[in-house]
Amino acid sequence: MRQSTIGRIACLASAAALLAACCGPREVRVIRTEVPARPAGQEDVIGLRTDPIDTVRVGFVGLGARGSFAVYRYTNVPWTRLVALCDVLPEKVERSKAYLLEEGFPEPATYTGLEGYKAMCERDDIDLVYICTDWAHHTPVALYAMEHGKHVAIEVPAATSLDECWALVNTAERTRRHCMMLENCCYDFFELASLQMAREGVLGEILHAEGSYLHNLSDYWNDYWENWRLDFNYRHRGDVYPTHGLGPIAQALDIHRGDRFKTLVAVDTKSVNGQASFEQKKAEGTYFQDEEAGAFRNGDLTCTLIRTENGKSVLVEHDVLTPRPYNRMYQLVGTLGYAAKYPVEQYSLRQQQLDAAGIAYTIENQHAALPDQVAAQLQAKYPNPILSAELEDKAKEVGGHGGMDYLMDYRLIYCLHYGLPLDMDVYDLAEWCCLGPLGALSMDNGCAPVEVPDFTRGGWQKTDGFKYAFADGTMR
Amino acid sequence: MRQSTIGRIACLASAAALLAACCGPREVRVIRTEVPARPAGQEDVIGLRTDPIDTVRVGFVGLGARGSFAVYRYTNVPWTRLVALCDVLPEKVERSKAYLLEEGFPEPATYTGLEGYKAMCERDDIDLVYICTDWAHHTPVALYAMEHGKHVAIEVPAATSLDECWALVNTAERTRRHCMMLENCCYDFFELASLQMAREGVLGEILHAEGSYLHNLSDYWNDYWENWRLDFNYRHRGDVYPTHGLGPIAQALDIHRGDRFKTLVAVDTKSVNGQASFEQKKAEGTYFQDEEAGAFRNGDLTCTLIRTENGKSVLVEHDVLTPRPYNRMYQLVGTLGYAAKYPVEQYSLRQQQLDAAGIAYTIENQHAALPDQVAAQLQAKYPNPILSAELEDKAKEVGGHGGMDYLMDYRLIYCLHYGLPLDMDVYDLAEWCCLGPLGALSMDNGCAPVEVPDFTRGGWQKTDGFKYAFADGTMR
Repeated sequence: MRQSTIGRIACLASAAALLAACCGPREVRVIRTEVPARPAGQEDVIGLRTDPIDTVRVGFVGLGARGSFAVYRYTNVPWTRLVALCDVLPEKVERSKAYLLEEGFPEPATYTGLEGYKAMCERDDIDLVYICTDWAHHTPVALYAMEHGKHVAIEVPAATSLDECWALVNTAERTRRHCMMLENCCYDFFELASLQMAREGVLGEILHAEGSYLHNLSDYWNDYWENWRLDFNYRHRGDVYPTHGLGPIAQALDIHRGDRFKTLVAVDTKSVNGQASFEQKKAEGTYFQDEEAGAFRNGDLTCTLIRTENGKSVLVEHDVLTPRPYNRMYQLVGTLGYAAKYPVEQYSLRQQQLDAAGIAYTIENQHAALPDQVAAQLQAKYPNPILSAELEDKAKEVGGHGGMDYLMDYRLIYCLHYGLPLDMDVYDLAEWCCLGPLGALSMDNGCAPVEVPDFTRGGWQKTDGFKYAFADGTMR
Repeated sequence: MRQSTIGRIACLASAAALLAACCGPREVRVIRTEVPARPAGQEDVIGLRTDPIDTVRVGFVGLGARGSFAVYRYTNVPWTRLVALCDVLPEKVERSKAYLLEEGFPEPATYTGLEGYKAMCERDDIDLVYICTDWAHHTPVALYAMEHGKHVAIEVPAATSLDECWALVNTAERTRRHCMMLENCCYDFFELASLQMAREGVLGEILHAEGSYLHNLSDYWNDYWENWRLDFNYRHRGDVYPTHGLGPIAQALDIHRGDRFKTLVAVDTKSVNGQASFEQKKAEGTYFQDEEAGAFRNGDLTCTLIRTENGKSVLVEHDVLTPRPYNRMYQLVGTLGYAAKYPVEQYSLRQQQLDAAGIAYTIENQHAALPDQVAAQLQAKYPNPILSAELEDKAKEVGGHGGMDYLMDYRLIYCLHYGLPLDMDVYDLAEWCCLGPLGALSMDNGCAPVEVPDFTRGGWQKTDGFKYAFADGTMR
């Protein structure tokens, strides 16, 4: 990733302009990465609709913790058939196959080995390839699947480099296939309710948002096949897992639906716990993809600040190496209101917004969050349109981070079934995943500002705000 | 402020180096402001000790909300005599004078008008000038007082420009007077306890810290003499009020006591609520220092990221214009533990740290904060050495943000009385106050990295960690 990115840095300004910039306050000295020209005749996939699919035939690649759990969830998702299973390790395939047979489902086709996914993607009876592999294989499998006419759903982060982001964008545009990242946090009930408040203007204009992934993984490093996750941090600097924090707030900010991420800067710490974990694994003789000496590249934690074209700001934090309590943050800061999920759920509003919502409550302390019962009334006043009582019950019954995984799967299949635009497109994927490589570029250049490429290549204002598609033809 | 700052930007690199930097990942393109050479024969004031003062004779300048409350507190501080009172407005002086007489204190000398402080500073029976004016007069009064042999204590922010920071540093060094900023948040009980844990290594190595000032001031703008606070935001971009968030975490990070702030970047939002407040005041005919048209300069909120020489990171937020609940943040993220004060108090530790502390509790959920009773035991295990049961009771009785204002005053007078180094020196003042002008410089240059000047001019490693001075001669 790093070499290719660095090799492609272009520059906004001439040496003279840069000198002027350094000695004057007005010039902007921003690092810009190359935006490849869109091939002639190729169009964007904003609002892409494909033919309705009566029964979505799904093939799963990667059957570890996330993949095998996805197979379970899909036995509960309507309009689907589980056609094929693939994993590097035969035992993982057998485990999920056995589960399906126990549950009375037809025997799935099975594929194993590092290349197994290719034969699966070459089948003509699969509509959707659902990818839950290690990060390194997300994009290669997705590209191969789209090249063979399949829609793809990819676990987070779907791409780990700018090259991968652009490859997914260009391939989705050329093949006209849906390429969605499985950002389940966009379907958390708190985020769904707060997004709806934001979309209805209850919080005023959203000016700032915060998202994070603070999750101490020290007990989990050994759970990843060949230790790939710690190894990825060993080799890559920056926020390598930004999408849980960034996805839900990007929707609330209408990113590439009227606004766009424009500039980012990133700051990390030195590596202490990361280096120690690496040394420990080496002492234990834990396998690394290749044995190289050297320092642990990622800091123990990384903070990234983004400014949008419309003058909004975003803070994203990544910390998987310190003992901080679990925190996925999620803050929306509006001109008239505020929503926050961690460490405690909080809403605050200006009085006129409460009055407009028809909630009879007089704010006595402007500087405190609203009482829980008022917050509950507020959430009830602004139901997210994708939710029904029935669907909510089903999601909670099936589970998956409290139901959000099921809601995500349901919406994906619902939209494919009715031939509707998906809730998240390949540009969301690229905008959310580029934070890692761009942050590394910023930090390797002394925390210099880096321009976030416009992955829509001019289309970021075509859509007026984030909306969901529905079978009745409405976008809400 | 702005003109003078911009006029003094120097540059790290040549045009050629800059071009190389822009097109290669290794060069650092950082804006460096001028560090004035220390005048020949002048020495730093690190660890400055002055002659013990049996009774500290205090003169107060600025008797608004903060100043009049300080006068009340000082009627409870030992080793002091309240000698003189000064304010622009005679009625403010009369109010505090009347209070002192009611309480049976000797009649203080009084001074009024914009220049009143000069005659007060020229008296030969004052040891300490305590400054609670509007921000614009903090530094001018302090400089005049030091030039006339007085120690100074200045409300936050003591300086609002780099010129003011350097003027205070140079004047304190030349006159050998104490110049302390009244950062009361360094004396909040939670911060005092957490700082002690950090100093004893309970949290491991502190890698990251967060501080903020999130306080919706919309109801308070009219409380400031001639509307100066909103007016300051109207004219200045950046985190103009950083010290409450930055002060306590800077102490935990041993800033200029082994580490130093090295580089910062800042990102703000556009102005919406700020501009609206300004328009409203104009419509109401509220007086502004001068009638100029134009846009509100400060964003509605600002985030600043700092990296230290030793590879730590710091996040500071400023937001006085949105309806966020009050939040002074304060987070310490260590390799082995975590402390956070807002929106809920949280501690988390690795098991071995709890065991080492002799606290019998088995952590079952590594991803949750410690239960309140365990946190309470932890705080009790690491009492801050400046606290005694008697002092704590007195502080809570006198009050001032729960007692921290009194503790701050007490420690200031205690150290002057015994001739000890103060808890906070003029370099702390400059390091904490420079965030505003440096952040503006970063944002006016497209969020470029800006070097934080070494206000100690080479002395930042002379002291090994933050310590308090005591009458028994120890530094703890």
